[in-house]
Amino acid sequence: IIQNGPYQNNIYYNIEKQYVGFATLPNQVHRKSVKKGFDFTLMVAGESGMGKSTLVNSLFLTDLYKDRKLLNAEERINQTVEIIKHTVDIEEKGVKLKLTIVDTPGFGDAVNNNECWKPITDYIDQQFEQYFRDESGLNRKNIQDNRVHCCLYFIPPFGHGLRPVDVEFMKALHEKVNIIPLIAKADCLTPNEIKKLKDRVKEIDKFGIKVYQFPECDSDEDEEFKQLDKELKECTPFAVIGSNTVVEARGQRVRGRLYPWGIVEVENQSHCDFVKLRNMLIRSHMHDLKDVTCDVHYENYRAQCIQEMTSKLAQDNRMESPIPILPLSTPDAETEKLIKMKDEEV
Amino acid sequence: IIQNGPYQNNIYYNIEKQYVGFATLPNQVHRKSVKKGFDFTLMVAGESGMGKSTLVNSLFLTDLYKDRKLLNAEERINQTVEIIKHTVDIEEKGVKLKLTIVDTPGFGDAVNNNECWKPITDYIDQQFEQYFRDESGLNRKNIQDNRVHCCLYFIPPFGHGLRPVDVEFMKALHEKVNIIPLIAKADCLTPNEIKKLKDRVKEIDKFGIKVYQFPECDSDEDEEFKQLDKELKECTPFAVIGSNTVVEARGQRVRGRLYPWGIVEVENQSHCDFVKLRNMLIRSHMHDLKDVTCDVHYENYRAQCIQEMTSKLAQDNRMESPIPILPLSTPDAETEKLIKMKDEEV
Repeated sequence: IIQNGPYQNNIYYNIEKQYVGFATLPNQVHRKSVKKGFDFTLMVAGESGMGKSTLVNSLFLTDLYKDRKLLNAEERINQTVEIIKHTVDIEEKGVKLKLTIVDTPGFGDAVNNNECWKPITDYIDQQFEQYFRDESGLNRKNIQDNRVHCCLYFIPPFGHGLRPVDVEFMKALHEKVNIIPLIAKADCLTPNEIKKLKDRVKEIDKFGIKVYQFPECDSDEDEEFKQLDKELKECTPFAVIGSNTVVEARGQRVRGRLYPWGIVEVENQSHCDFVKLRNMLIRSHMHDLKDVTCDVHYENYRAQCIQEMTSKLAQDNRMESPIPILPLSTPDAETEKLIKMKDEEV
Repeated sequence: IIQNGPYQNNIYYNIEKQYVGFATLPNQVHRKSVKKGFDFTLMVAGESGMGKSTLVNSLFLTDLYKDRKLLNAEERINQTVEIIKHTVDIEEKGVKLKLTIVDTPGFGDAVNNNECWKPITDYIDQQFEQYFRDESGLNRKNIQDNRVHCCLYFIPPFGHGLRPVDVEFMKALHEKVNIIPLIAKADCLTPNEIKKLKDRVKEIDKFGIKVYQFPECDSDEDEEFKQLDKELKECTPFAVIGSNTVVEARGQRVRGRLYPWGIVEVENQSHCDFVKLRNMLIRSHMHDLKDVTCDVHYENYRAQCIQEMTSKLAQDNRMESPIPILPLSTPDAETEKLIKMKDEEV
């Protein structure tokens, strides 16, 4: 009965050239991703007054800080580093993005900044821990992922390079989050000064600090893409200027800063690297930042957790062989209900 | 210093209409998926001689069974249901697919077919278990996912509808895998007979069996898509004919079967539902089949596992509160090494 017809190879391979249709798989993925929507969590860190909020508003053309209250000097003395989350749902060409900005007001503002990065590393770890609990739990349908995908670290343009607090901050965070160092308020530096400061900031390598590395450009990309990718990499750390004020420059309304000696245009590539940062952060590498967060930073955290649990158990000798235990300190209501049901069946 | 310029709302919202660029996110996902490649695992089940291998070859235009040896009657008496995997790497328009066909030769061929689906359900469970172990393990970088995404179940065209063995098979599997029932070798049925048999097969609902449900069509799809989706749903279960033989029909070389009374064309939609099956399985719903496997069938398996472990632990009273334990019966070499390192540190 078997219909395995004696097809001649040449005819068969002719057929093989026909279209099967699995080439649509990336489109199926594309379609699904649009339907589902995206989320992205961006942390901004750096001293007060570095233009963090302005830059975020400039990047996403949204007003995330409508209700922000600026503290006076007296209030700031008592301020500790706190973590503030702003979430906004934005849509562009039918693509929905739930953008969360994690702000760290008060960081580096105190007289004594010993361990001022602690609340920030704690926050990042807590999000990892929560995700670890959730993905180890029983019901994983509606997990909210609050892991931080990227941290823009604002380096002051004043001074002569990295300060100890900058080095310590990045040292504490570089294995937990994708750090993108930025030279803030670059409109107070001449091109020459910017070049010097960039070279100094690049020296973080010496401290063993690995900020976010752009992935290798595929060899099969077209030449234009390769060129842009090369320029992007050469340009780091980005020197940026933000503005939510619209000014008139060369007959056009642009976002910029009006000085008596001229107009600084945020989106003018000869004025600063804002456009390069935006292209990288949003248009080309946003998804890679998420992937690196999940595949590298989170996996490192998770492996460390399991190792600690395993070795603790081995020491306690409570079990014969070390078995990792899920970090569910308290069973949720659902589990308990199910256990009860199971017990009743027995 | 704060640059929170007093932007007038109307100007600000004008800017807001500009392009931020996160609309490229689906393209970033698309790009990444192409780079990574795809995999798909398809199971075919049904009695010998139902044209399973031929249909798979017809669907993917590849020869998955080059070395297949057909058993004679004597050999088949001693044959038990076994599971055979064929894997092939195929590429189309730059999209790579690792296709695995899980074959179940011997199924339903014996005189006594009691529990003949057991090796098949066991196989599916084993893949889930392996994945559960892997995703609970320490190193998750190179997990091989062998979960079965879809099972084409071949119903014989002879007889008058579903046989007990068909019902029992689907009952045993429907909560573990996406079943797509097919009416095999439909070229021995007249259109009227096909309609009747389809109606009978649809009665599986009565047994509480849920075969793969096509997802609801989005309301924002265009009319043509909606129409095709409707036709697809109305057409199930698909009545199919396979052939790897090329014949001449209406002046064209087509895959078909040459009878004295005419030519059956596999890809002629008035002859059978092969094209509809291919469109659905490969071009429109392949990714959804994977998603349902991961999000529904695997999650069900996993939840059941955790519940069993939890209630077992609670009964054993080995711990005060029921804590799910990962199903790592033996720690892998890596864990042990790491534990050793940790111990040496202490």
